[in-house]
Amino acid sequence: MSSSVQFSFIIGWIAMLAGGLAFWQMSRGLSPKQKHHGVAAMTIVFVAFANYFAMALGQGDIAYNGRDVFFARYTDWVITTPILLVSLAMMATDALSRLRTLVCALIAADVYMIITGLVGNLSTAPYNYYWWVISMVAFFVVLGLIWKPLAAEAVNGPNPGAFKTLATMLTVLWICYPIVWLIGSSGFNVISTAVESWLYLVLDVTAKVGFGFVALGAARKQA
Amino acid sequence: MSSSVQFSFIIGWIAMLAGGLAFWQMSRGLSPKQKHHGVAAMTIVFVAFANYFAMALGQGDIAYNGRDVFFARYTDWVITTPILLVSLAMMATDALSRLRTLVCALIAADVYMIITGLVGNLSTAPYNYYWWVISMVAFFVVLGLIWKPLAAEAVNGPNPGAFKTLATMLTVLWICYPIVWLIGSSGFNVISTAVESWLYLVLDVTAKVGFGFVALGAARKQA
Ligand SMILES: CC1=C(/C=C/C(C)=C/C=C/C(C)=C/C=O)C(C)(C)CCC1
Ligand SMILES: CC1=C(/C=C/C(C)=C/C=C/C(C)=C/C=O)C(C)(C)CCC1
Repeated sequence: MSSSVQFSFIIGWIAMLAGGLAFWQMSRGLSPKQKHHGVAAMTIVFVAFANYFAMALGQGDIAYNGRDVFFARYTDWVITTPILLVSLAMMATDALSRLRTLVCALIAADVYMIITGLVGNLSTAPYNYYWWVISMVAFFVVLGLIWKPLAAEAVNGPNPGAFKTLATMLTVLWICYPIVWLIGSSGFNVISTAVESWLYLVLDVTAKVGFGFVALGAARKQA
Repeated sequence: MSSSVQFSFIIGWIAMLAGGLAFWQMSRGLSPKQKHHGVAAMTIVFVAFANYFAMALGQGDIAYNGRDVFFARYTDWVITTPILLVSLAMMATDALSRLRTLVCALIAADVYMIITGLVGNLSTAPYNYYWWVISMVAFFVVLGLIWKPLAAEAVNGPNPGAFKTLATMLTVLWICYPIVWLIGSSGFNVISTAVESWLYLVLDVTAKVGFGFVALGAARKQA
């Protein structure tokens, strides 16, 4: 692991920790009915903190098939991306239990996406590309569920504007992940591991800390 | 891996993919309250698709204790069999949340059955037989829960006829798995790996795609 890669992980855990402390502070101002937004945002960044911390210590990767695979990214994502989706769903409605089926479908497709992505990262060419395609299909299912049934619910939800902002943020940021994956060490390997890890860092911080700030900011204004 | 074994895996992923596409089409005709049947059926076959795909690529088995262990069967079953049980429970009642305890008990016994089965497959004789017996006990618990408390709920459920058909199908098909396991490479090894993998294929396709067709067919007629 080069020192630039390791440095990105150190920035990662510091950013996630700082985000978590900020969210803790922000959560105190939430009404009881909105506390779930705080719990989600904190869980997300503290899980990411632990995974970045492990990677910074050199405990989050293994040499496999002649490549350095940062499996800790996937243990992070497989936990945090479902919570991000639940967070978005909580902005779409005040009665999450009514959307049980939809939330289960979102989580199923999302976890499928992350796990097939991990399998791809552990595979050699050309198999890694097959798994990338399978993961992408699951990703499009996630986006379809967000923009069709979930968006339809959000129209009558407590805060259609905040839903739209968060859904757009999520879509734009999440689309970058499969691109980085494809040009990085898991795919064509046309960027260095250092560039790859800085790109993931910027995405992770924006998709978790940035997203949480917007979500908590909107939740604070709700009863 | 012999070519006949590999061919069975290719048929497997094609069948699961085809089943998934058919379920997707069938799900569009479901009423909102019945969509959960579609989500369950699709999740089951798409998870099986990924596992068969991995096995077809030679990524789903490891040499262990001098045997070829297809661990991907277990990563498939440990996810899909709980969903099959939930699917059955959704046919027994319209208010799944009321059966929370029973569903948790079913899933606990079922996951126990699959994991002890995997441990058995990773064990040499005679330990593998000990694990088979332990797994069988869990299996009988699953069957007992289905035919006693769950069947009792189904009598007052939305569709007692469909429940009975599905429960019977499930019982007959699932009983074959421990038999194949016992005569196959995990047990007495009296059938070839090729015969073993074709038997599992027929069982998997019937227990997942066949079961899903019956479940979705019944759900379509419900409000
Ligand atoms: C589609 C696709 C992928 C998608 C990953 C995504 C969408 C990750 C999102 C992570 C977030 C948002 C983390 C923290 O906030 C992978 C797994 C790279 C593998 C290749 C195909
Ligand atoms: C009791 C028992 C087993 C039961 C397996 C079953 C019941 C599997 C069902 C799988 C299905 C239904 C898959 C897909 O649809 C094992 C694990 C073979 C190990 C030996 C003892």
